[in-house]
Amino acid sequence: MAFDPASLKYDTQGLIPAIAQSESGEVLMMAWMNAAAVARTLDTGRVTYWSRSRQAFWVKGETSGHVQRLVDLRVDCDRDCLLLVVDQTGPACHTNRRSCFYTAVRNGQEVELLRPEE
Amino acid sequence: MAFDPASLKYDTQGLIPAIAQSESGEVLMMAWMNAAAVARTLDTGRVTYWSRSRQAFWVKGETSGHVQRLVDLRVDCDRDCLLLVVDQTGPACHTNRRSCFYTAVRNGQEVELLRPEE
Repeated sequence: MAFDPASLKYDTQGLIPAIAQSESGEVLMMAWMNAAAVARTLDTGRVTYWSRSRQAFWVKGETSGHVQRLVDLRVDCDRDCLLLVVDQTGPACHTNRRSCFYTAVRNGQEVELLRPEE
Repeated sequence: MAFDPASLKYDTQGLIPAIAQSESGEVLMMAWMNAAAVARTLDTGRVTYWSRSRQAFWVKGETSGHVQRLVDLRVDCDRDCLLLVVDQTGPACHTNRRSCFYTAVRNGQEVELLRPEE
């Protein structure tokens, strides 16, 4: 079946959550896409989110160089969430950590799992 | 630092997206939690979402038996998304597939990657 970005379920702001995962399985980040960002990501192979704060396309890594090349795009059963398998250049997180999920909650305490890369 | 579920950033409906990942690295599903669901998940070790359709707690697997035992809970840099590392019993998806992300988009076509388990 041909894929149409319009067939996805977007929220009231026209957005769908997109999870980025490295090929080795690490969950790197979660951000949002609108239908046009989904289409651009597929067309260009460069992961392109929709920035809610800037209300503009966010080509991941355009300023930092920490680009995400799309390896595989997956849709969930409800068609309201995307999983992007990506080839990540450099750290995915704006804090310079490999993943945004660097804080764990263990025994009621926050524990930092990753340090910023040099 | 002590963790407080109220310190997370919830959307206008009081919800935060929660990604469930198996210990082997497979992204299984994405669902939503409110602050009380986060607290219950940590207290009980049984992953508990908030069902937007039923407007009620959703103890994953309560009816299906396909429970998720919490292994690790992680918070992202913006504190507006959670990553749950889980020990998943049976398939995570209501379609009886191991993961909800069983559809890939390749060369413009939707491709089914996983079959329902027996």
